[in-house]
Amino acid sequence: MPELRKDPVIKRWVIISTERAKRPHDFVKPKVEETTGFCPFDYGNEHTTPPEILAFRPADTEPNTPGWWIRVVPNKFPAVDNQIESQRYGVGMFDAMAGFGYHEIIIETPDHNTNLALMDIRQVEEVLWAYKERYDAISKDTRIRYVLIFKNHGRDAGASLQHPHSQLIALPIIPKRAIEELSGSQEYYSYKERCVFCDIVNQEKSDGKRVVEENDDFIAFEPFAARFPCETWIVPKRHSNSFNTITETEVKSFSRVLKNVLYRIYKALDNPPFNFMLHTAPTSGEGKLYYHWHLEIVPRLTNVAGFEWGSGFYINPMPPEEAARYLREIEIP
Amino acid sequence: MPELRKDPVIKRWVIISTERAKRPHDFVKPKVEETTGFCPFDYGNEHTTPPEILAFRPADTEPNTPGWWIRVVPNKFPAVDNQIESQRYGVGMFDAMAGFGYHEIIIETPDHNTNLALMDIRQVEEVLWAYKERYDAISKDTRIRYVLIFKNHGRDAGASLQHPHSQLIALPIIPKRAIEELSGSQEYYSYKERCVFCDIVNQEKSDGKRVVEENDDFIAFEPFAARFPCETWIVPKRHSNSFNTITETEVKSFSRVLKNVLYRIYKALDNPPFNFMLHTAPTSGEGKLYYHWHLEIVPRLTNVAGFEWGSGFYINPMPPEEAARYLREIEIP
Repeated sequence: MPELRKDPVIKRWVIISTERAKRPHDFVKPKVEETTGFCPFDYGNEHTTPPEILAFRPADTEPNTPGWWIRVVPNKFPAVDNQIESQRYGVGMFDAMAGFGYHEIIIETPDHNTNLALMDIRQVEEVLWAYKERYDAISKDTRIRYVLIFKNHGRDAGASLQHPHSQLIALPIIPKRAIEELSGSQEYYSYKERCVFCDIVNQEKSDGKRVVEENDDFIAFEPFAARFPCETWIVPKRHSNSFNTITETEVKSFSRVLKNVLYRIYKALDNPPFNFMLHTAPTSGEGKLYYHWHLEIVPRLTNVAGFEWGSGFYINPMPPEEAARYLREIEIP
Repeated sequence: MPELRKDPVIKRWVIISTERAKRPHDFVKPKVEETTGFCPFDYGNEHTTPPEILAFRPADTEPNTPGWWIRVVPNKFPAVDNQIESQRYGVGMFDAMAGFGYHEIIIETPDHNTNLALMDIRQVEEVLWAYKERYDAISKDTRIRYVLIFKNHGRDAGASLQHPHSQLIALPIIPKRAIEELSGSQEYYSYKERCVFCDIVNQEKSDGKRVVEENDDFIAFEPFAARFPCETWIVPKRHSNSFNTITETEVKSFSRVLKNVLYRIYKALDNPPFNFMLHTAPTSGEGKLYYHWHLEIVPRLTNVAGFEWGSGFYINPMPPEEAARYLREIEIP
């Protein structure tokens, strides 16, 4: 019997379809294949990107030369521009702003054909440290209200280059989805005097059915009202509204859970395209009591990419309980 | 210079990218190709679908036999089920409902390899009449709160069959997007005492830059804060919150604008996959003063399908003014 389920944070209903229930091998999966040829993110091509903003590299190497293990550069084709003035204006009845902001690329490794699921755990930690370092630096710019950190893996997920990288877009506005999560979790807090995400973590731990990975500091699960097959959230157990409060121990725990979850998705769906995004508080720090940062991972399986774009309504052909079972069955090496 | 633009109804900011600006031929377009082989929607295969609910057919033909020009059948693999009881319940802290609802297929023509852009205008009108007839019938069921009418064209837009068809899903809940539009337009009304969509129509008419098609009753334009290249809205000029108030004259006008817009998209983007969806009031009829029904068309171009799924944030590499220009340049036969 199909079921309608409501997301407890943003109140979005989805249809969990059973008539159309699918297993991982039922999907046409646009597998992410290895690529060869020139890549601006490879060793030796450092001069083909804009100069690096941050690099983790041996002390005896020059900037913009090989040797680095993490490298952050401005996006060569930025969606927003930090050289222009942040300015609001009207266009007739409409509201617009100059496209001020930061758009950076976090090159996760010099190794062209790997990915976070397969990397050494130390390297995954370094990626997270790079996220935090750039987050901290950019959030000091008082014109910036939100820092989006996300990853597109594979062409079908929007990545124009295959080389492992994440992106950071910092904006003078707060994206709609963040506003929705903030106001939804605030409403829950004003009713219950508890954080909705903390409650979800407790519920998932006691149910167990949707849990994929867990350690001392983090839990990964398929959300109750998952929009997509194998949609997975990673949530810190310690209540905090902002990613940038992460501790050294938590970076280690987070990288372990992240790597394992991505490995399970990699194996279960055969290296599918995916997106992930850090959901964190605005730079103002609002939501200390009621908001809770987390990471949302969305694999991109083409034949479930239906009318959701147009309608904002989702039909998920894989109940999250089953998705969790498939992902748990994958053996971690 | 990139620009941030805000949707005046639901307040979603998008980035209109200029550094990444693209023309129609820059996209990898997953062209919708003709198909052959068995199709349950072809003449002679009527017995392979569930029995028809409605058909426009000559009086001397039997139900579920050839001769029809429009045929409506229950979806054989429905996302929701109208045979079960509509019931709400809790699952721990979560909220769920039995998957009650209607899921129907509107077969738009017996002709397997055509589409609305190429059909005879009379046939397009008949499709709209079928929408209205099913809308009216289903909205009488008091358990139903919203009737979604939408179309997936092409496999990459979620269509599992190529034969021209639309879908109707009727639900005991109101989809999040509809709630957002209702509350956004209500807020605008309480501030301005005018309908936001009526204001948009006037603004678009006076600007002209984003207009694609217009006749006495309807206007089609690229929205100011378009999320996607060639995203096009068709809005009735007469204020009405619900599609089912459409008059006979308006059906004629709507079908003309719809066919022409889809033809322009068909030509400009070489028969791309697309989704469209009727945005209309809930069956309760709320929003009479402030809401305004319309149709949103979203072509699906693969390499702009990026991180939007995960983030709810959009980067549009084709300014809507340019998209409108490309679409206007297409010659209507």
